[in-house]
Amino acid sequence: MPANSKKHSVPSATVPRLSQYLRKLQEMQARGTTTVSSRQLAEEVGTNPAQIRKDLSYFGEFGIRGVGYEIDHLIDELKKCLGLDRSWNAIIIGSGKLGTALARYRGFEKQGFNLLAMFDASKSVIGKNRGVGPVLPTDQLEQFIREHGIDIAIVTTPAGVAQNIIDRAVAAGVPSVLNFAPIRAHVDKPAILRQVDLSTELMILSFYLNS
Amino acid sequence: MPANSKKHSVPSATVPRLSQYLRKLQEMQARGTTTVSSRQLAEEVGTNPAQIRKDLSYFGEFGIRGVGYEIDHLIDELKKCLGLDRSWNAIIIGSGKLGTALARYRGFEKQGFNLLAMFDASKSVIGKNRGVGPVLPTDQLEQFIREHGIDIAIVTTPAGVAQNIIDRAVAAGVPSVLNFAPIRAHVDKPAILRQVDLSTELMILSFYLNS
Repeated sequence: MPANSKKHSVPSATVPRLSQYLRKLQEMQARGTTTVSSRQLAEEVGTNPAQIRKDLSYFGEFGIRGVGYEIDHLIDELKKCLGLDRSWNAIIIGSGKLGTALARYRGFEKQGFNLLAMFDASKSVIGKNRGVGPVLPTDQLEQFIREHGIDIAIVTTPAGVAQNIIDRAVAAGVPSVLNFAPIRAHVDKPAILRQVDLSTELMILSFYLNS
Repeated sequence: MPANSKKHSVPSATVPRLSQYLRKLQEMQARGTTTVSSRQLAEEVGTNPAQIRKDLSYFGEFGIRGVGYEIDHLIDELKKCLGLDRSWNAIIIGSGKLGTALARYRGFEKQGFNLLAMFDASKSVIGKNRGVGPVLPTDQLEQFIREHGIDIAIVTTPAGVAQNIIDRAVAAGVPSVLNFAPIRAHVDKPAILRQVDLSTELMILSFYLNS
């Protein structure tokens, strides 16, 4: 059966767990393990076997009763499910400390994300190399997105301009945004937005420390 | 009534919303607004008024019927709730690109987090300044934590050593950890762990792009 067959009905809470399963299976594969039961995998990721069987059931019948899952095969299927068997074109908007750190983060490439360019509004950094070739001016954003078929815009601008830059990227055709700016950003469907919000994480820690 | 009176019963999903309300209220305060209704605040943050009234009810009765909330007062109360009226001692473990970016992230100080030191296992970076004074060797970690009463350990080490370093920090008395290493880390209660997981965020985007 095709890995994508039931994809549209996958609950949103399942998706991050699939990425955990994949990571753990890859560790087991590297150790030379070839099969795993849902019970073993559950122990490794800190969940219960029923959860794992349920999560994997959205994608078809991978397991063999009494044997478990064949690790190589399950990894391939999860990669297909997660779109990790192909590559995505990405840009970073905002070339500050965080943008630069991300530009040099090896994880992008490993997961099939090709960083094609970095943009900034500040004349003082345009043309400098912050990890992905010369920084381009943001007034070239729309043209670049259209010409290169950008799949993901990673936003690390200051808070005050982030929503505007997200709107521009989406209007130019970017289907997904990973926002690091400390705002509650929004995109119109069908575009996808994920937030990585350090400021909120810090407040959450602070809240519980204060309890 | 004390702001903390009902704190222990606050649902975990409420806490991140409180930080959003605070951020939005601070923006409104900066624009010179003095009062806000739950309806207006709900529109600003993209939720519904009932949610806001419910979330704020855990901390007492802030609103005045027909008038709404006094912004200055509500900001003060939220800051108390979120532990933002005091300061916390933090360290960064791992002085790579991400650790260095975080060391220079202004948001920490603004939220009352004092970065006291940065640690690394690699001799080649020890003693160098990556944003918070000379990088210290990780074999001084436990002693430093005990001597300085560290509240938060921010972990940006490679995946392979992250759980071990988290265990060491918690054993030495750190009550909370903000982990950026791409592992499913765990801490024993009562320690608190928050994860910022770029790799999972990328897989989630990739999953939906692939749909």
